[in-house]
Amino acid sequence: MATDVVLGIDIGGTNTAFGLVDRSGNLLAEDSIQTRGHADLHAYLHAVAGGARTLLERHGAAVALKGAGIGAPNGNYYNGTVEFAPNLEWKGVLPICDLIRKELPVPAALTNDANAAAIGEMLFGGAKGMRDFIIITLGTGVGSGIVVNGELVYGHDGFAGEIGHTIVDPDGRQCGCGRRGCLETYASAPGIKRTVFHLLADSSMESELRGVSFNELTAAMISKAAERGDKIALEAFEYTGRLLGLKLADAVAHTSPAAIFLFGGLANAGKLIFEPTKRWMESYMLNIFKNKVKLLPSGLQDKNVAILGAAALIWKELQKP
Amino acid sequence: MATDVVLGIDIGGTNTAFGLVDRSGNLLAEDSIQTRGHADLHAYLHAVAGGARTLLERHGAAVALKGAGIGAPNGNYYNGTVEFAPNLEWKGVLPICDLIRKELPVPAALTNDANAAAIGEMLFGGAKGMRDFIIITLGTGVGSGIVVNGELVYGHDGFAGEIGHTIVDPDGRQCGCGRRGCLETYASAPGIKRTVFHLLADSSMESELRGVSFNELTAAMISKAAERGDKIALEAFEYTGRLLGLKLADAVAHTSPAAIFLFGGLANAGKLIFEPTKRWMESYMLNIFKNKVKLLPSGLQDKNVAILGAAALIWKELQKP
Repeated sequence: MATDVVLGIDIGGTNTAFGLVDRSGNLLAEDSIQTRGHADLHAYLHAVAGGARTLLERHGAAVALKGAGIGAPNGNYYNGTVEFAPNLEWKGVLPICDLIRKELPVPAALTNDANAAAIGEMLFGGAKGMRDFIIITLGTGVGSGIVVNGELVYGHDGFAGEIGHTIVDPDGRQCGCGRRGCLETYASAPGIKRTVFHLLADSSMESELRGVSFNELTAAMISKAAERGDKIALEAFEYTGRLLGLKLADAVAHTSPAAIFLFGGLANAGKLIFEPTKRWMESYMLNIFKNKVKLLPSGLQDKNVAILGAAALIWKELQKP
Repeated sequence: MATDVVLGIDIGGTNTAFGLVDRSGNLLAEDSIQTRGHADLHAYLHAVAGGARTLLERHGAAVALKGAGIGAPNGNYYNGTVEFAPNLEWKGVLPICDLIRKELPVPAALTNDANAAAIGEMLFGGAKGMRDFIIITLGTGVGSGIVVNGELVYGHDGFAGEIGHTIVDPDGRQCGCGRRGCLETYASAPGIKRTVFHLLADSSMESELRGVSFNELTAAMISKAAERGDKIALEAFEYTGRLLGLKLADAVAHTSPAAIFLFGGLANAGKLIFEPTKRWMESYMLNIFKNKVKLLPSGLQDKNVAILGAAALIWKELQKP
């Protein structure tokens, strides 16, 4: 009997990764193409579908395609569109779901990458069986997916779950969104780099990071310096955890999740980021919520979450009665 | 044929109001008793049920009681309990739903007062047909009820929706919850009074409020002074709207509601509070959410929302398939 599979597609600014995912979250095959350099959006999606067909042909009658799930920046679940994504070369509202359905005769659904990660976590990862949780992606930006009563929160317009763009300080750091002081400007990989540069400027502490330029400095270098005991690097994690903890306490006051999962590049710093974030989150938490909310790493850390999450979107739809 | 009615019970620190509400949200009869001064919790709830029975007997066979809905501070929907409510004389976890069910042989449900108001707004007020909205109560405290996908958000523990205790400034004003800088310390009736006293201290502007003591000053006096053009009073509304707008923009980034309803004493100041709140909310809003979210007064303003909301909780349950 053929194994049912779903095509998961992760549209990134540079690469588009895709793969075949079974009902249990096993990635049976995967490939990727460049996102840029295609004649137009149709040509690009034709290339994605072509790549997917090659994977399917390789498995022949052993697999049966049940749907295509897509994770993309600025993805709108209700419309199946990507809207005004700053990192893609096609502008305006892109009817990606409709175009994919023309290429592949199966149901298709689309959401933003952090939402896809949340559904992946719910179906295949550490949030199995949880009805209320939040996933926070700490990467180049800060994304989030909020799950309430076992369903992802899309909001009235399909764009809910932008905790990275809640405001820490309205007079704070300039954000890519055009405003100031968003959580993303502090708790992302570029955010902790900005914090290091503030600390280098404000304090006189010695640091191995004093020899590194802004352009050269990476979050991974800050982690390594912190592991070696560098005080500026440690202080940067403390500050990042403080502000992230503050806004996570606010998030808890909204939807009261059982757990918050941290995910992405900065979350890979492990205890360096988890310990201060948890401590400050608890200290900023309203009494009734204290010591109830778990702060956890993703259960899909060593897997291709972007593809699994995109596929999970369809597996979740197929579960509906 | 008898009209189906639900008993709505609003437990306040001083008074307990209750009434019979039909399916369309008409309050057919109401009464109230004092919350304090009873021998114990059983005696108090026996008195509430007695009052309800008197209302029912007055209508005789014309009405049929279908359930009892209760709105109470620190109400936990999942357990039907009131937990550690600072304004009630009974301490700890109070099994109010169980006790009411013993008094009245009908289904009972309980939630906190702001959540009850949200359900009332959804069934009988301005949120009819809305699947995603938030209600904010601006009274002695700041409460909130969040609705996502047509369902109230209770969270994993039954306590979700505490936007009044999201933090504006972790080093800010002392809050009744034991922390500092909660939205409630700025956007409640006592909050705007505190703002007036800050402004009186910091500026040299003339104001009719310079002759009033902290104990004497009320939010209504600030509204009246603002209507007469008092600059300190107007500035206080501006500041209140700014901070409320900031935290509402954060709330939108969580659940992306179609509308936010403002309700309660301070919301009665009308344009004085709505205009600056809307303006600042838009200015603090992430691009994708701008000019989409309505800021509205409650559609139940001149009604007894507390009773209607408590009753709506049961009407909502009875609608479920």
